[in-house]
Amino acid sequence: MISERMDALRERMRQYGIDAYLVPTNDFHGSEYVGDYFKCRRYLSGFTGSAGTLVVTQDMAGLWTDGRYFLQAEEQLQNTGITLYKMGQEGIPEVHDFLVEKLQKGQCLGFDGRVVSCRTAEKLKKDLEAKQVRMDFTHDLTGEIWKDRPPLSAEPAMLLEEKYTGQSRAEKLAKLRAVMEEKGADCHILTSLDDIAWLFNIRGNDVECNPVVLSYAVILKEKALLFADSRAFGAPVQEALAADGVRLLPYQNIYVWIRKLTPGRTVLLDRGKINYAVAASLSAQVKVVDEPNPTVAMKAVKNPVEIANIRLAHIKDGVAVTRFMYWLKKRAEAAKKAGRTEITDETGAPLTELGVSARLEALRAKQENFRGISFETIAGFGPHGAVIHYAATPETDSRLHTGDFLLVDSGGQYPEGTTDITRTFALGDVDRERKHYFTLVLRGNLRLAAARFLHGCRGVNLDCLCREPLWEEGVDYNHGTGHGVGCYLNVHEGPNGFRWKITKGGDSAVLEAGMVTSNEPGLYLEGRFGIRHENLILCCKWEKNEYGQFMFFDTLTMVPFDLDGIEISQMSEREKGLLNAYHKQVYQTIAPYLSREEREWLAGATRAI
Amino acid sequence: MISERMDALRERMRQYGIDAYLVPTNDFHGSEYVGDYFKCRRYLSGFTGSAGTLVVTQDMAGLWTDGRYFLQAEEQLQNTGITLYKMGQEGIPEVHDFLVEKLQKGQCLGFDGRVVSCRTAEKLKKDLEAKQVRMDFTHDLTGEIWKDRPPLSAEPAMLLEEKYTGQSRAEKLAKLRAVMEEKGADCHILTSLDDIAWLFNIRGNDVECNPVVLSYAVILKEKALLFADSRAFGAPVQEALAADGVRLLPYQNIYVWIRKLTPGRTVLLDRGKINYAVAASLSAQVKVVDEPNPTVAMKAVKNPVEIANIRLAHIKDGVAVTRFMYWLKKRAEAAKKAGRTEITDETGAPLTELGVSARLEALRAKQENFRGISFETIAGFGPHGAVIHYAATPETDSRLHTGDFLLVDSGGQYPEGTTDITRTFALGDVDRERKHYFTLVLRGNLRLAAARFLHGCRGVNLDCLCREPLWEEGVDYNHGTGHGVGCYLNVHEGPNGFRWKITKGGDSAVLEAGMVTSNEPGLYLEGRFGIRHENLILCCKWEKNEYGQFMFFDTLTMVPFDLDGIEISQMSEREKGLLNAYHKQVYQTIAPYLSREEREWLAGATRAI
Repeated sequence: MISERMDALRERMRQYGIDAYLVPTNDFHGSEYVGDYFKCRRYLSGFTGSAGTLVVTQDMAGLWTDGRYFLQAEEQLQNTGITLYKMGQEGIPEVHDFLVEKLQKGQCLGFDGRVVSCRTAEKLKKDLEAKQVRMDFTHDLTGEIWKDRPPLSAEPAMLLEEKYTGQSRAEKLAKLRAVMEEKGADCHILTSLDDIAWLFNIRGNDVECNPVVLSYAVILKEKALLFADSRAFGAPVQEALAADGVRLLPYQNIYVWIRKLTPGRTVLLDRGKINYAVAASLSAQVKVVDEPNPTVAMKAVKNPVEIANIRLAHIKDGVAVTRFMYWLKKRAEAAKKAGRTEITDETGAPLTELGVSARLEALRAKQENFRGISFETIAGFGPHGAVIHYAATPETDSRLHTGDFLLVDSGGQYPEGTTDITRTFALGDVDRERKHYFTLVLRGNLRLAAARFLHGCRGVNLDCLCREPLWEEGVDYNHGTGHGVGCYLNVHEGPNGFRWKITKGGDSAVLEAGMVTSNEPGLYLEGRFGIRHENLILCCKWEKNEYGQFMFFDTLTMVPFDLDGIEISQMSEREKGLLNAYHKQVYQTIAPYLSREEREWLAGATRAI
Repeated sequence: MISERMDALRERMRQYGIDAYLVPTNDFHGSEYVGDYFKCRRYLSGFTGSAGTLVVTQDMAGLWTDGRYFLQAEEQLQNTGITLYKMGQEGIPEVHDFLVEKLQKGQCLGFDGRVVSCRTAEKLKKDLEAKQVRMDFTHDLTGEIWKDRPPLSAEPAMLLEEKYTGQSRAEKLAKLRAVMEEKGADCHILTSLDDIAWLFNIRGNDVECNPVVLSYAVILKEKALLFADSRAFGAPVQEALAADGVRLLPYQNIYVWIRKLTPGRTVLLDRGKINYAVAASLSAQVKVVDEPNPTVAMKAVKNPVEIANIRLAHIKDGVAVTRFMYWLKKRAEAAKKAGRTEITDETGAPLTELGVSARLEALRAKQENFRGISFETIAGFGPHGAVIHYAATPETDSRLHTGDFLLVDSGGQYPEGTTDITRTFALGDVDRERKHYFTLVLRGNLRLAAARFLHGCRGVNLDCLCREPLWEEGVDYNHGTGHGVGCYLNVHEGPNGFRWKITKGGDSAVLEAGMVTSNEPGLYLEGRFGIRHENLILCCKWEKNEYGQFMFFDTLTMVPFDLDGIEISQMSEREKGLLNAYHKQVYQTIAPYLSREEREWLAGATRAI
């Protein structure tokens, strides 16, 4: 099947005179997740992982993917004739370098310009120009040969009421236009889906776990254009948009519209976010102000209405996750009491990673206005907990036993807000080593959450407060300490974050009051177990004095840390005090929503140590 | 007197058609301190502070200086006709903006291009071009009217032996040339005096407290040129330099030499370090690679021989400062015992800030190979301790009393290394508030010194470990936590440092093994008292494992922190352990060099708490 598809693709390539064809994993908007319509790389290669890039020439085909997927890709690429390129391994070239090396003078590189970012394509263009290699970015060859391709998603777009957004569409547009004017721009092209959803106070369901609407937007001085499938917009939504001067136009028309922009116009856009086809549609006579989308900073700073709602979302989510914890801990206890290591549900069926994920989702679903999970649940038992992006499949699905950790990283979407929480549960008794590292990571989490700092600090300044206890013992976790989180939007949102390395990506903006960031240190012992403790924290103003404006974090997530994982003697008095204060707050916040038995259990689970 | 000088200056300005003349505080090399020859701003204005910029036109004269000098400048500028511009105060323009505003179309701005940095002048040029204002940077007008101007310093240049430098001149030149080749440069212009002294293994005495030689250097592929006063170079020095292909040329000839550089040459230089006259001498046909001087990174990483010597320097310096502490504490104790608050010396004469500074210098002078202090001693009693750059004068010289702090920030130069240490001494009994803050600052110092971290970390990542205890109480110190320190060179040296704000200056390089940095948190209550605790710490490699290369700091400074300032109950067990371990090391290192009474006292001063 795969070889037929590859043959068909190569035939098209010959027709168009394309010598190498590039198929990344992306939609037209640089989204973190992509809908079924956009799964071209998967269609062509048969590889189902979430990340990978396919390169096809007449004499070879290669798939690039990262360490998470080496095993899976090896299996899925068997007998396809596609070579696996294990990214990051010694001697394996990057896709960019491979193409620059492989393509010969006068040849042509093809790709669909809508699914390759402007930066990636421009870098290729520059390095290929020296070899006089042409770029053809106007053909979606996969689309031409993909007969039963799923349609573009066109789920209903909904208005998000002001009782949730705290700010009207008109106000947001006015503020955005003020920034445009400041920068001398009379036009702003916006293609990132979360920015568009935030700006227009709309939500949809076109990308898995992200409540966004497939669309492009152009903001002008007097009106705004929304390029989207009009069938997704009911009459009330269309009317509300029209009332604020927002015109609906067909989704794909954005490219024609941009091409018609007259010389003398000044367009504000972020080359780091737009795709290459958008960039290539701009006339050279149009002036470009290449800066981050102003909406990024605007939506990161949550307003008082959003903050009040986010707290409500965390109470609902906290009730669901606390109930999950109650159930899980009770099941482990039952196994222990019965002298079994295997943990089972009430009917005696063994608990598995997929099983408990479903249980957790079901508990969330009981909460009012639950709109789905905010990302695919990571439930990793024992060694699986050490796989940072683990997602259980029926093939890998582990049964839970006592004596080890279950790491659960999950989140929910509610109109009030988006949640993201990781708890590491000790099932039955765990050994000293596990407790030691559990406590180490928890100390880091507590210390970052308790930080007070001067306004002007960035994540890059504070990250090491969290890592200090781990680094003191010569251990580390190979990921950032935290990322920004949207409000009933994407669970990963810029520009704030905690990361000690200074990166170009820029997720280390100055921490402003109203920003929500995750605080999620971890520790992963390969082949053994993994630990992560994650809460979302809200940046707030503390006192202002002669030294400046001080800030602090208010923890939003309301679920106990598993006291059974803690080695109390390792914690300082201050750290114990911080944990006890948090647990007291969890009890006071969550207990009122629980049954009597659950409440009694929670009192123990949040007892002062 | 001042008005006569200003009249003479204005007459010259008219002769040359200069409408505004700019006189900064600088030498030709961007040095932090300047020799007497370069004190033009002081000569013209009568203001003796270490920082300030003078601007003179036909109808006004203004002196810009910062908060440290407002009072002094007000007094010294009385009846001079020169207006004081208090930098940083609301409504006070910066010098640059003032000039851009003041100068009219077609007018001329004059300055000596050798004392204005390339960046400053280029920014002025750009902003004045719009107004068609000319720049004349070829006249040193102060020099033309300054009759009894001190000559340029020409103190003897000395060779620093390889037993101190650990690396020969030839090796250093070879490494530098390898970097030049990497960057495609066939010529490197080096004007910063500490870089030149380091590269050629020479030391001098041409800048107060900095053992450097007034010179410019040019490094070519086959030879190197040193532009300096040949009278300062004895025959052995000249021969040693010549043996490594270093030619001596007259100091001022650098400008002519640069002007003769032929098109097609590629010159490596740092526009952030060279003066404007150097930059303006370069033909437009010469290609410039504008990067930090490679010697900056090279000299920051001390080699094993330097490190062994630096440790020796700190032992000698530690003995001197510990003896000072012994004497001072005994004098305070004597006053207390006698029921007096005033502290006196053995003869009954009152101790003052200047008096104890002299005493400290005398104790350092007794150490073998002492080559002078590394910066002007800051000895601030009580409220003076809160003035960050305080330097006592006969007018301000306070008498010491019991019941308050004496802050002493000082350092020494030895061929083995440069020291920089601050101790805050409790004289007699101090109150709870003073102890509280003393302890708070000490906790920050101990925590930074104890940090373990992954290689790749910069000062910007670690600074907040030091500030965390202070920030937790809503207090701060308005300066960096630390700066790099030279090896028998300048006490302030890049590119390493601890600072949480991300600055353009770039004193936050990746911390490499072999770098020496100060760790000096403080707290300053204006009009009351000041606290600073400063040790120098050496960055070292710790263990390397699957997470990466871990690093730690080894403390070089060996003098007790004053236990009489500490509120023990405020310190965690970990912090007490860190202090006790340090004090144990101080005792073991310093005691062998002390008299019996001193040693007994030191045992008490370093007792475990």
